[in-house]
Amino acid sequence: MNFSSDTSAPAHPRVIEAITRANSGMESSYGADSVTQKVRKALSETFETDDFDYWMAASGTASNALALSCFCPATGAILCHADAHIAVDERGAPEFFSGGGKLQLLPGPDGKIADAALTKALAGINHAFVHETPAHVLSLTNLTENGTAYGVDHVADYAARAHAAGLTVHLDGARLGNALVATGASPAEMSWKAGVDVLTFGLTKTGAMGCEIILLFGGAREKWGELQARAKRSGHMPPKMRFLAAQAEAMLEGGLWLDLAARANAMATRLAAALVAVPGVALAQDVEGNEVFVVLPDGVASKLLDAGAVFYPGPDGSHRLVCSWMTTGSDIDALVRAAN
Amino acid sequence: MNFSSDTSAPAHPRVIEAITRANSGMESSYGADSVTQKVRKALSETFETDDFDYWMAASGTASNALALSCFCPATGAILCHADAHIAVDERGAPEFFSGGGKLQLLPGPDGKIADAALTKALAGINHAFVHETPAHVLSLTNLTENGTAYGVDHVADYAARAHAAGLTVHLDGARLGNALVATGASPAEMSWKAGVDVLTFGLTKTGAMGCEIILLFGGAREKWGELQARAKRSGHMPPKMRFLAAQAEAMLEGGLWLDLAARANAMATRLAAALVAVPGVALAQDVEGNEVFVVLPDGVASKLLDAGAVFYPGPDGSHRLVCSWMTTGSDIDALVRAAN
Amino acid sequence: MNFSSDTSAPAHPRVIEAITRANSGMESSYGADSVTQKVRKALSETFETDDFDYWMAASGTASNALALSCFCPATGAILCHADAHIAVDERGAPEFFSGGGKLQLLPGPDGKIADAALTKALAGINHAFVHETPAHVLSLTNLTENGTAYGVDHVADYAARAHAAGLTVHLDGARLGNALVATGASPAEMSWKAGVDVLTFGLTKTGAMGCEIILLFGGAREKWGELQARAKRSGHMPPKMRFLAAQAEAMLEGGLWLDLAARANAMATRLAAALVAVPGVALAQDVEGNEVFVVLPDGVASKLLDAGAVFYPGPDGSHRLVCSWMTTGSDIDALVRAAN
Amino acid sequence: MNFSSDTSAPAHPRVIEAITRANSGMESSYGADSVTQKVRKALSETFETDDFDYWMAASGTASNALALSCFCPATGAILCHADAHIAVDERGAPEFFSGGGKLQLLPGPDGKIADAALTKALAGINHAFVHETPAHVLSLTNLTENGTAYGVDHVADYAARAHAAGLTVHLDGARLGNALVATGASPAEMSWKAGVDVLTFGLTKTGAMGCEIILLFGGAREKWGELQARAKRSGHMPPKMRFLAAQAEAMLEGGLWLDLAARANAMATRLAAALVAVPGVALAQDVEGNEVFVVLPDGVASKLLDAGAVFYPGPDGSHRLVCSWMTTGSDIDALVRAAN
Repeated sequence: MNFSSDTSAPAHPRVIEAITRANSGMESSYGADSVTQKVRKALSETFETDDFDYWMAASGTASNALALSCFCPATGAILCHADAHIAVDERGAPEFFSGGGKLQLLPGPDGKIADAALTKALAGINHAFVHETPAHVLSLTNLTENGTAYGVDHVADYAARAHAAGLTVHLDGARLGNALVATGASPAEMSWKAGVDVLTFGLTKTGAMGCEIILLFGGAREKWGELQARAKRSGHMPPKMRFLAAQAEAMLEGGLWLDLAARANAMATRLAAALVAVPGVALAQDVEGNEVFVVLPDGVASKLLDAGAVFYPGPDGSHRLVCSWMTTGSDIDALVRAAN
Repeated sequence: MNFSSDTSAPAHPRVIEAITRANSGMESSYGADSVTQKVRKALSETFETDDFDYWMAASGTASNALALSCFCPATGAILCHADAHIAVDERGAPEFFSGGGKLQLLPGPDGKIADAALTKALAGINHAFVHETPAHVLSLTNLTENGTAYGVDHVADYAARAHAAGLTVHLDGARLGNALVATGASPAEMSWKAGVDVLTFGLTKTGAMGCEIILLFGGAREKWGELQARAKRSGHMPPKMRFLAAQAEAMLEGGLWLDLAARANAMATRLAAALVAVPGVALAQDVEGNEVFVVLPDGVASKLLDAGAVFYPGPDGSHRLVCSWMTTGSDIDALVRAAN
Repeated sequence: MNFSSDTSAPAHPRVIEAITRANSGMESSYGADSVTQKVRKALSETFETDDFDYWMAASGTASNALALSCFCPATGAILCHADAHIAVDERGAPEFFSGGGKLQLLPGPDGKIADAALTKALAGINHAFVHETPAHVLSLTNLTENGTAYGVDHVADYAARAHAAGLTVHLDGARLGNALVATGASPAEMSWKAGVDVLTFGLTKTGAMGCEIILLFGGAREKWGELQARAKRSGHMPPKMRFLAAQAEAMLEGGLWLDLAARANAMATRLAAALVAVPGVALAQDVEGNEVFVVLPDGVASKLLDAGAVFYPGPDGSHRLVCSWMTTGSDIDALVRAAN
Repeated sequence: MNFSSDTSAPAHPRVIEAITRANSGMESSYGADSVTQKVRKALSETFETDDFDYWMAASGTASNALALSCFCPATGAILCHADAHIAVDERGAPEFFSGGGKLQLLPGPDGKIADAALTKALAGINHAFVHETPAHVLSLTNLTENGTAYGVDHVADYAARAHAAGLTVHLDGARLGNALVATGASPAEMSWKAGVDVLTFGLTKTGAMGCEIILLFGGAREKWGELQARAKRSGHMPPKMRFLAAQAEAMLEGGLWLDLAARANAMATRLAAALVAVPGVALAQDVEGNEVFVVLPDGVASKLLDAGAVFYPGPDGSHRLVCSWMTTGSDIDALVRAAN
């Protein structure tokens, strides 16, 4: 009954198999190996384009910060939701990697930046006024931190407005697979076709050991050399890159990542349905991905914790329960039994 | 015939087995898992002390930079050899992590800091002179970048002098196992007993997938909280830490890392002996660990490269050939055949 | 009719006289001169204590950022009002000087941090939770950016609560003189006696050419060496420090700075009274110092601008008019004539 | 008998007069004032071009670091002499302002980068090798730290080679006037005509209170916006810029700065001649500007110090005596009397 996070799950067995397969013979270091080269082809198929460059890192914090620091200068700012992972859960990584850039926090319900807040922020950019820090990047998160999903049209609209204001568009896709399953969009539709310039494509929460891919699309590729230099100097160029690549290979092959995301989403839907049937329990947020935010009546939360369930507080007195590719119907049944 | 680097080798099978073993069930994230806890015990036995804290990262650059940045303030400097990995191969990672600290490069033959250079540098520290950047850390490398080994007494002497000048002592042990085998010293003797305050304990080159352990000994433990915060904000706190821990567990168990280092060292000794038997070939540097620096006569280098051998240039026109735990007698025989 | 800013005013003649006086003979550089030494005595009398260290810089941005960076580590955060000068008018200086620290923006009416917002922020500090950035400093501004003044009791209450949570207390006193005149408090009462650890004591807006003094009180003095090092490396240790010191000397002598602040405050009171007598004009904010925030009816603002008046927009459609030591009754009369 | 530094001298009276003149009436802040605008015209005449942008700061450290940080990215390096002021006397300012860039120190006699060292450094730049930090800027100093002067041809040659390697050329002209007097070159000849892209034009040592001008020439002007942003966030945009501008105005008018530099150079020549006439005294370095490096026999240095002379040690056991616009023949006579 561990619903604490999708990162508490192990890796999918096919990831381990790929690691084992990759563990053979001598290979060039630092990304010049044969497995890393194969990932390029798999990404090309997944995103339906060859117009991209990529780098892999072992954590989402690293991937986000590296991606952002290539587009936000030390004297600039990044627009993001006030509850974004980059704002509240990464210990200042964007500020550190960018050399002292700022996050400009925007409000909005359901974990999404409010339309009016974006409009105001974009209108407020004034490069001629040297005293204020102008935004250079818009960072969206999909799934959001509230477990909701931006639709493709929403992303495309925000991206177009950001581009019109001269900004680069970043998508934190730590749970991209869950968002795609939720919206029915393809990877290409949710990224470069919607105007995303740089993507943090998360595979860890979905089922890898630790593998997040930074993709630069189209014009953003001009930062490819800088991305590598920043990866190197921040320690995110491990010599035996083949083991990051093997994870990506396994997750992308046959769309495993999407299957696993679909499984996690389905379990969350089931969990939500089962929980709201418990007297007094209500959803704090629509369940669109693999996260369930619920309001638990007095006593229910402690009953669950006493029974050994693991989960964390969410915003405004709610609780968050996360499903992963490992979550089973039995886990859910056991939880619901304990709640009653 | 790939002698390019010990990082071109795969991981030892026991590392993969440990990864596979760790890949079971739910675990807490960010280092609160059961495997990470076991590593503490193994480190305690390896280093014969409980007076330490540790963190794991996937690259040596990350580990060195994190370690150094806890002890060198942004306004300070790090003393190191002019050819140190932190100086020439880490794309400015120490400067980045420390917030703009300086490396003060010291000369010396055989990859070791010259006695007089250290004396002069320590004597030159003047905290009262605000215009100059005073050294706060002495960073030694063992094996050195020239493949030589500092003896325990040498490290202890330099550490004592650095301590007397108020410095913290860091040891870059990317090839610590090779240095221990070379000198016959124990891990404890070469680290905290010799005055090392913070150690980068490398396991990747020795046989892991990607695992380097930062150890804080004794008084240096006061930086434990800061180390974690710095690891987090630099993206070196991957959620599924169990997979870093599993590597450490496998490498430490039964002293596997030392066995593998011994094997690599022995192969380097054998390689050196075979090479100097080739007419015109001479050692550029005494072989003490797993690296062989040779001067190859005109024609020999190209003959080897034509035969498919892989290796890189060393300093002053020499060439560097590195042995790993994977290197076999056949590899060496094939190389030497090609050289003749 | 220039009401744009108190920084548009020239320096008081006694400041120029002191500069001229200081311009004689050879002096040691970098603060070891005789004039700088005299400032210490004047500060001691002004703040009724010897338990302080100080440094001078030519801009408020420099002084604030230097002060904050000594107390907020790169992994930490600074609590401040959402409209604070350090948040919106210093182009990311605190983030830059601290090496990537964060500002945590707190709401509150009248430019003052709301009591509940401070309570919540302090309660939310969790040094054990490595993912979030914990606050290390509370930065207050007095006069606030809305031209209002915190009373001594208010500062002391907030400081006590910040201290209880382990924070250092910084006061941005760019308009300290105006705040003291407004509240009747003495320099000592508004600073160290109220729990302020580090003060940016602004003299530029009050009547200097460019001189802001950073004062470290009591326990904060342990950062004195670091402050100097940070001043040097950020270019805020000009060789001929005597010219900064001469400004401080002139402003402190006989309490000139307080006389000038009182004059500016009195003019603002008179300006406010005259403006609200104009039909349709209302105060947007109580006038407590030397700044007047007014709501001007349609047509009045443009009438004033057409007449050559200079002033800037304030928050929420208001306008800001600032008085300085140079502002005269005739300036005000002319403005009000133009408004009618 | 104060020969410690040209920064120990006061400002020239005409500088104070200009300050006094500027201290009248209201002016726009942050460089939009009328005095700052006049400086543009004076610089245009001084450097015989309109193809430039400029900013003023109060210290050489600030000006150098701001200039360099616009052209050296955080992942890059700056080539400079091992004894350059930016390397040894600025407490890591270039590293701080650039966000962790590196200085790559080059040797050479007489304070000048040796030809072969530059050749080797330029040849070693390899942007394709991500592990090493490639140079982006060549920084020359004229006068050098040894008091010698690069000739125009020397600067032009080095600049051309640096440009061919893709580098930007910076000139630290803290003592530019002294170098121009020494070589007979014009400001234009020694800067943009010789290939200098960005100049730190020092006026403080020559006779200002504290005023150093950063000039961006030609293509380097594309960094003008970034330079302003960096000036603002580092606290080098004081509100009452008119007082920096007034200094520049006075120094440039009628070539005062060159007259003062010529006076200081002449005094140094006279001092050197008088000192070498003292038995046992020898020049450690040719005197080309306003600095005299001498080897003093045992006893002479202490005799001088006992007599109240002020001067500092130079390299290799020598002593440095600096003349300024204030130095008189009587000062020199008194010193020489004390030496005999």
